Amino acid sequence: MEPQAIRIFGIDPGLRHMGWGVVELAGTRLSYVASGVISPPAEDALPVRLAALYDGLEALLREHTPDEAAVEETFVNKDPASTLKLGQARGMALLAPARLGISVGEYAANQVKKTVVGVGHADKKQVQAMVKVLLPRADFSSADEADALAIAICHAHQRPARQLKVATQ
Amino acid sequence: MEPQAIRIFGIDPGLRHMGWGVVELAGTRLSYVASGVISPPAEDALPVRLAALYDGLEALLREHTPDEAAVEETFVNKDPASTLKLGQARGMALLAPARLGISVGEYAANQVKKTVVGVGHADKKQVQAMVKVLLPRADFSSADEADALAIAICHAHQRPARQLKVATQ
Repeated sequence: MEPQAIRIFGIDPGLRHMGWGVVELAGTRLSYVASGVISPPAEDALPVRLAALYDGLEALLREHTPDEAAVEETFVNKDPASTLKLGQARGMALLAPARLGISVGEYAANQVKKTVVGVGHADKKQVQAMVKVLLPRADFSSADEADALAIAICHAHQRPARQLKVATQ
Repeated sequence: MEPQAIRIFGIDPGLRHMGWGVVELAGTRLSYVASGVISPPAEDALPVRLAALYDGLEALLREHTPDEAAVEETFVNKDPASTLKLGQARGMALLAPARLGISVGEYAANQVKKTVVGVGHADKKQVQAMVKVLLPRADFSSADEADALAIAICHAHQRPARQLKVATQ
C-alpha cells in the first residue's frame, strides 16, 4: 500500500523577505508543491509589516494545509539590532503554524545545508543547485524561496522516527 | 466640555513574562484601568509559548478596547541568543494590536524611565514608586506589570500633538 503523503511547509524567516516552500513526502519520495516569498512594503511601520508577514503565512497555510512546518533557526550575527528584527520576523514564522495546530520543527542553518548539500558551510548557489536536483519540478526565482524549500527537505529527512511511524500507519 | 478619554495599552515584552497595563487619559488626567502579566509554561515548545503570549494579548485587547498601544523597544544586550528570544516575544507584542487595527508607539527603555522618573537610568524600584505616585489606584505585584504601566504613561506624554488634536476634537 502506498504510504500516506505528508505535506511539509518550510519557512526561511526574514523581515524584508519571508521565503516559503511546500514539499510532499510519500514514503521516501519527495516532490515539489509550491513556493514563494512574502515581502511587505519596507516603508510601512514595523507592526504593520509584521502583520503582513503573519497574515500572508496564515493564508498560505490554510491554502496548502501542511501536516507539519519547519523553520530555520536563524543565524545570529554580530549586530544586535538586526538580530532583534530577525527575531520579530521569526516569531511570525513560529506563531502562524502554531496557532493552526501545526507542529513546527526548528533547524539550524548549517544543519539544513548539511542535510541538503552534504556540508554545513555550503553557499547559496550550492543550496539552490541541490534543491533543483532533489525537486526537479521546483520553480523558484530567489534564494529565500530555495532556502525555504531546503528547510522543508531537511525536515523531511530529520523528522523523528516516531512521527514517521505514526504518519505511515 | 470634558475631553474624550483615550485608553492606552502598554506592553513590556518578554518570552517568560509579558507585562501589560492599561491607563486612561482624559485631557491631562491619567488613571489606572488594569494590569497583569502573561507567563506561558516554560516547559512548552517555543511556538506554543509564543501562541500563548499572542492569544493572551489579543484577548486582553478585545476586553479593554484600547485606542492606542505602546511597546518598549527592548534593551539589546550582549547575548545574541537572548536578543533573538526577546525579538520573538516582542513580535507578539507588536502583532497583536496591529492585527486589531490599533496603532503602536515604540519607546526605548531609557525614554520610558526619563518620562516617568525624570532620569534615563532609573532602577526598577524607582520606576515602581513613580508609577504608584502617578497612578495611585494602580494595583501591581511585579516589575513587569509596573514597567508596562510606565510604558503606557510614557506614551500618554509622548503621543504626537497631531494625535492629541484628533483625539480631543
